[in-house]
Amino acid sequence: MIKNDHKAYAKREKFYMHGTMYPDVRVGMVKVNLTPTVTRDDRGMPHTRSNAPVLIYDTSGAYSDPDFTPDFEKGLPPMRQRWIADRARNRQGVTQMECAKAGIITPEMEYVAIRESMNSESLGIKNHITPEFVRNEVALGRAVIPANTHHPESEPMTIGRHFAVKINTNIGNSATTSSIDEEVDKALWSCRWGGDTLMDLSTGSNIHETRERILRNCPVPVGTVPIYQALEKVKGRVEDLTWEVFRDTLVEQCEQGVDYFTIHAGIRRQNVHLADNRLCGIVSRGGSIMSKWCLIHDRESFLYEHFDDICDIVYRYDTALSLGDGLRPGCIADANDAAQFAELDTMGELVLRAWEKNVQAFIEGPGHVPLHMIRENMERQLVKCHEAPFYTLGPIVTDIAPGYDHITSAIGATHIAWLGTAMLCYVTPKEHLALPNKDDVRAGIIAYKIAAHAADIAKGHPAATIRDNALSKARFEFRWRDQFHLSLDPELALRYFTEVGHTDGDYCTMCGPDFCAARLSHDLRKLKKRQ
Amino acid sequence: MIKNDHKAYAKREKFYMHGTMYPDVRVGMVKVNLTPTVTRDDRGMPHTRSNAPVLIYDTSGAYSDPDFTPDFEKGLPPMRQRWIADRARNRQGVTQMECAKAGIITPEMEYVAIRESMNSESLGIKNHITPEFVRNEVALGRAVIPANTHHPESEPMTIGRHFAVKINTNIGNSATTSSIDEEVDKALWSCRWGGDTLMDLSTGSNIHETRERILRNCPVPVGTVPIYQALEKVKGRVEDLTWEVFRDTLVEQCEQGVDYFTIHAGIRRQNVHLADNRLCGIVSRGGSIMSKWCLIHDRESFLYEHFDDICDIVYRYDTALSLGDGLRPGCIADANDAAQFAELDTMGELVLRAWEKNVQAFIEGPGHVPLHMIRENMERQLVKCHEAPFYTLGPIVTDIAPGYDHITSAIGATHIAWLGTAMLCYVTPKEHLALPNKDDVRAGIIAYKIAAHAADIAKGHPAATIRDNALSKARFEFRWRDQFHLSLDPELALRYFTEVGHTDGDYCTMCGPDFCAARLSHDLRKLKKRQ
Repeated sequence: MIKNDHKAYAKREKFYMHGTMYPDVRVGMVKVNLTPTVTRDDRGMPHTRSNAPVLIYDTSGAYSDPDFTPDFEKGLPPMRQRWIADRARNRQGVTQMECAKAGIITPEMEYVAIRESMNSESLGIKNHITPEFVRNEVALGRAVIPANTHHPESEPMTIGRHFAVKINTNIGNSATTSSIDEEVDKALWSCRWGGDTLMDLSTGSNIHETRERILRNCPVPVGTVPIYQALEKVKGRVEDLTWEVFRDTLVEQCEQGVDYFTIHAGIRRQNVHLADNRLCGIVSRGGSIMSKWCLIHDRESFLYEHFDDICDIVYRYDTALSLGDGLRPGCIADANDAAQFAELDTMGELVLRAWEKNVQAFIEGPGHVPLHMIRENMERQLVKCHEAPFYTLGPIVTDIAPGYDHITSAIGATHIAWLGTAMLCYVTPKEHLALPNKDDVRAGIIAYKIAAHAADIAKGHPAATIRDNALSKARFEFRWRDQFHLSLDPELALRYFTEVGHTDGDYCTMCGPDFCAARLSHDLRKLKKRQ
Repeated sequence: MIKNDHKAYAKREKFYMHGTMYPDVRVGMVKVNLTPTVTRDDRGMPHTRSNAPVLIYDTSGAYSDPDFTPDFEKGLPPMRQRWIADRARNRQGVTQMECAKAGIITPEMEYVAIRESMNSESLGIKNHITPEFVRNEVALGRAVIPANTHHPESEPMTIGRHFAVKINTNIGNSATTSSIDEEVDKALWSCRWGGDTLMDLSTGSNIHETRERILRNCPVPVGTVPIYQALEKVKGRVEDLTWEVFRDTLVEQCEQGVDYFTIHAGIRRQNVHLADNRLCGIVSRGGSIMSKWCLIHDRESFLYEHFDDICDIVYRYDTALSLGDGLRPGCIADANDAAQFAELDTMGELVLRAWEKNVQAFIEGPGHVPLHMIRENMERQLVKCHEAPFYTLGPIVTDIAPGYDHITSAIGATHIAWLGTAMLCYVTPKEHLALPNKDDVRAGIIAYKIAAHAADIAKGHPAATIRDNALSKARFEFRWRDQFHLSLDPELALRYFTEVGHTDGDYCTMCGPDFCAARLSHDLRKLKKRQ
């Protein structure tokens, strides 16, 4: 489906950069070739200056390579298979963290370093992010490379606050909706628009088969919330959930290749009551399931009690743990309360236990938080969770705009990512109202690509503004097509531009020629030259 | 057109609050009546508790009053006519600022105080904003009440950082597009969705007639950029612009009732060169026109030289001045540069001169600014411009998303409004690409209502969270219709909810009954009660 869209990107091309430590590391990216700047001198003679191409981080995998023919039955080529086999043979360690602590730079780490250094050469710096830098961040737990050894099809990426901010998208069917093919289609649609990781939150029928099909065809890491499938196994009866059912579900999903699990082990029996007086109670599905379980059985949750066992299982596959925030606020009135922060403390304790077992881990965060209360979330998380990467859902900064929560949440997301959040879970316009369709997924992703990129700029990521500046230059020089090719959604920009009858030229019908500021501004420069 | 939509708001009703100082002050608002909360005890018996109605600031004027029948030929009733006549007869002063400095509370000030105190009674505070507080802010120049004495149809509102953040929308035809009726239709559409003021940026034919029709039918203050019409009068030849042509245009528009003028008097001949090395030059239309004029004639701009004359003209009508930022950055690379800040210094000088003549004034701001550079804009503006209200265009925080600039700019707008910006000029999805249609206007307004409201919350506006909390409570209690009536765009929320077959009930098909966190959370509370 992605393949057929190539014509929309006539001047975009798939481009590969190769590893030097590992020659079979081959990092796919998008190269935007720009047209030259043409100026005319006093005699009307044209002078051209070329514009350097711009590289764009690409999450669409092999699908955007014109030489690749997708076969959804067969799945993507298992790019990482040999690296995984080599590590096993050489007993270098199972997880990325284990290797990192042992001083080993894995091919995944070199891959990530190249991917994150994109465009740095145009700044006169060669690879501003080195493989050694990546290794060190992973060793310290400050960055995670979600890469299940049973998901060799995924392209390595990292989640950490010293790297570009990433975005996650959620897909998944519920009890009555959508087929396997639809879910796979949505997964690839997400990768096409820029989703860095993908969570399959299916709770309906065919959970196992849907996930299998997604994993085999998905070029980005895939996460799940295993408690959902465990609950299906006990026919939706929370009280019947057991450690054994959950453990078997973990193993089943690890074997399939799930790259990270959201586990709500931060919920303690003693803390559930802290949510009693909330306006919106507990709004995390996993959080409400585990809280109910604790109350029914009046005991500590099996996720907390068996946390070391969970780590032992996921270690064998290098499935990362995303410590779920089951007590996150579900409205701004409940933000930063005792329940939320008690859970954060527990997550800080758990992340150390994960690291002891060389399990990669990160921390999920809110949710709904007014703008002025966001900073406390980030600062507290860094301290309490020992700089483990933070992965937040928005946050939404006002509750009055259902239907527009991709916007209410992108505002909070940009702010918290600027302050250090490593990955943002997208929110679509349908949040709180319905499951997203493909248009909603696209709208949610673009809003979050904006948030992540704006945060990269604010954080001072060295190469972040290159694309902005190339686009602005193209805009000022009326290189309309270049502008669109550099934009997050070239199709939409082109459509808006052409559907009102605009054509390429040194003004547009928005302001007309007399009122075109850019055109007047060029006149001004000519005037000055003559003076 | 607005009238026919009443059925969409069955539980919303038009509501008036009356003045005590001036009994004919009658402030329209929207009252959302909510259904009661129903809980069931152990024996299944229902218990109901009522939910207090929520008031919403209403910009739609008489059009949302079911007792009003619009007549676009005749125009709106001239609500303020007697107040204006009384002031003239009693020689109290012409402008709101003049009255304020003299210690006089005008009916407009009481109107504003009631409007801004909405919902404060439910907090146990009666009118947390008093008419005297409004008067004092206007006297100090910290708040503006744009209210041309020739536009008695407009409902008083204020722009100032100690009040709710406001939003402005831009409409207007260009050389070849749209008719008068279309522009009036767009103006009322803007008021219907929540635009607090409206700028008519028409540059095409029928400028005068379009403006007349808008003013007579528009319940919110209307602003213009008079240099556009002046340029039309000299057939688009910048070099032919003169003070006399401009002066006559000011008088013409003052007579019609324009409530505020954007005047690019901050551009000094000596500062134009500061934009020479910019990536995007000068992107303000007015700014590029005046810069070109300065260079062609090699002299100071007539706007700067005749600034006192401008003040003398607008004083007579109480037209406020919006000092235009002709040198605002047009891309993030040009943000916070010498050109921008030199102009800001000049605007600070001019605003004092306006105040001396009892002319109300505010300051326009950027534009395109990365998130981490926004604070400097606000802090500098407060100091250099003596706390005159700041009115910014976004700012856009990244340039890579044409087609989504309502989002890139809402992110920056929320941030700068939190820090003290009093009014935000909306940006539509079509910015940089085409003129907005009605869908775009609606999308831009909602994005900016979100930004303004999120900033009110972050600033700690006493009554700001009342609507959020009422909506969140309705959401948690599955009072779906109440939730939608409280939302910024009830129609869209309802459409998203119902188009996938949802019906009112204590879960929805998003998660299904087993995975509904809110439902589980209610179970939890019942469990606890029994323990």
